[in-house]
Amino acid sequence: MLDLIEYKELIEKELKVFFTQKKSESELDEQKELITILEDYTLRGGKRMRAYLLYLSYMGYGGKDFKQVLNASLSVELLQSFFLIHDDIIDEDEIRRGGITPHKYYEEKYKKIIKNKTKHLGNSFAILCGDLAFAYTNELMSKTNNIKSIEELNKVTAKVIFGQKRDMLTNYKDYNKEELLQNHILKTASYTFYGPLKIGMILAGKEEYITELSNNLGIAFQLQDDLLDIFGDEKTLGKPIGSDLKEGKQTIIIKETIKLAERKDKEYIQKILDKNMGTNIDIEKVKQIVISCGAKEKIENMIGEYFNKSLVELENTNLLKESKDSIKDIVVKLKSRQF
Amino acid sequence: MLDLIEYKELIEKELKVFFTQKKSESELDEQKELITILEDYTLRGGKRMRAYLLYLSYMGYGGKDFKQVLNASLSVELLQSFFLIHDDIIDEDEIRRGGITPHKYYEEKYKKIIKNKTKHLGNSFAILCGDLAFAYTNELMSKTNNIKSIEELNKVTAKVIFGQKRDMLTNYKDYNKEELLQNHILKTASYTFYGPLKIGMILAGKEEYITELSNNLGIAFQLQDDLLDIFGDEKTLGKPIGSDLKEGKQTIIIKETIKLAERKDKEYIQKILDKNMGTNIDIEKVKQIVISCGAKEKIENMIGEYFNKSLVELENTNLLKESKDSIKDIVVKLKSRQF
Repeated sequence: MLDLIEYKELIEKELKVFFTQKKSESELDEQKELITILEDYTLRGGKRMRAYLLYLSYMGYGGKDFKQVLNASLSVELLQSFFLIHDDIIDEDEIRRGGITPHKYYEEKYKKIIKNKTKHLGNSFAILCGDLAFAYTNELMSKTNNIKSIEELNKVTAKVIFGQKRDMLTNYKDYNKEELLQNHILKTASYTFYGPLKIGMILAGKEEYITELSNNLGIAFQLQDDLLDIFGDEKTLGKPIGSDLKEGKQTIIIKETIKLAERKDKEYIQKILDKNMGTNIDIEKVKQIVISCGAKEKIENMIGEYFNKSLVELENTNLLKESKDSIKDIVVKLKSRQF
Repeated sequence: MLDLIEYKELIEKELKVFFTQKKSESELDEQKELITILEDYTLRGGKRMRAYLLYLSYMGYGGKDFKQVLNASLSVELLQSFFLIHDDIIDEDEIRRGGITPHKYYEEKYKKIIKNKTKHLGNSFAILCGDLAFAYTNELMSKTNNIKSIEELNKVTAKVIFGQKRDMLTNYKDYNKEELLQNHILKTASYTFYGPLKIGMILAGKEEYITELSNNLGIAFQLQDDLLDIFGDEKTLGKPIGSDLKEGKQTIIIKETIKLAERKDKEYIQKILDKNMGTNIDIEKVKQIVISCGAKEKIENMIGEYFNKSLVELENTNLLKESKDSIKDIVVKLKSRQF
């Protein structure tokens, strides 16, 4: 069985082959450009963890057709690009994976020739870029020659869309902790863990309950994301920190901070959430508040617990030992992830 | 074989069943709302011509499984919603199919509770609404249990996306007539005619060249659309007229008008295209110019020729007579379409 580094290399090589093929079939410059933007975005970053989990699941459930699992793995990487490109438009993020996002690329490009509305134009082209990613996602999955994988892929996608909608509303609505955890399951667990593991299993022709396993992993993973938005290093992360705060997003860590912090600190955080600070947020001060009130430690403990629960669930699956061990390795690596 | 009215009724009944099922599976209000917006948009209009063409192709190539063709037909109707919803965002259209577009719905809704950025928020939710439509498109197509139909569906989708990109650029770039015709093939022929006919054929297990047939129909259909944008009746059309003009879009009819009109009229049209008139366009004056210079007649003749060429191509296919006759009936109806 391949390790993550070997599989990542292979996936990236195959993604290049796929995009080269698509470009060579293009008759139009505007078409080539859109594919190139998507290619660059897909290839310039990404842990390929979703692709690898799909592979581990497939092999661990006794799958034998390497070409099949490879196409499904490429598909989930394109799915990730699709979600991120539309997400970047929605969140108005200009930097991702260490580079400029598609909507920003097009905005900058047309600033030179068009007087106004370039932001709208940038967003519009990026909507199309994301749509293309999703069409390619489905095309690649169809190469598995397994129709159930398509059905699952699109059910997972619908979940992520609902999760994304809820996630956007956390900027405006006051969800409780249970509801926020549910968002993590919809938005993150579904396509980061459940989708890859389930599709790998379907392709291998097996049937098993892996929802709890995926949900625990997904919640832990998303809580880490929320934490990294405050404590991450921009360079390692490939994107700016503090963007949740700027949007006024009520994450679990921020909710805990408001619960635990002293009155003055609480008020400072609340001011940020109410967007009364604009973008003028003192991130060092936020860090200090989140640490000193004990919220950081509390969330880190939660993350540890969810990961540990996932390991128990993993043990109970019928995956072959080699796959189980590799997934355990991933969990160990995830526990200390900085990006 | 069912006629268009019977099939339309059936498709709409089945779409309702599909959405009711999806809503009943929803746990969250935010999820139900997004599905309801998509349902309303999909059901409140639409000729169901794409669904019916798929059915005619399937039956005409000897397909036997009614459930299969029904699911594929629902799928192409959702595909249409997907394209239109994202298109409405891009073109900033607020009315479609006689009602408010999804991005406008959400914008209006949040205007009541949020101070600013409601336009961006409306667009963001509508991006998700379109994405959901495309996920449902693929899920429905997967119910055909035919993997090749998925591959074709997504190849067609990619073409439409490239066509849409080119179409947007016609607001800024000066494409020649050949290039504009190519856009019509990519953006319109691909999913209005080629996709439905090809997928019906694939599901029926046949293989035949239908590109010319589809392209002729698609070009004629899109030229009609361009014409209706000037001469259509808003009520019958279900959307405002003159939107191409407002965007400064260089359609073939406008290019012809500039070529044929007298100098003063030419300048007036050019001013509109250069967006020097804002939204203050005298549509009656435009109509009069397009008619008097002969451009309207020229385009109408072109439309007639493309439809006639398509009838020759249709005759040469191996479709069963009953399907051929029904497609001919559609072409006859299309020739005089007012919406």
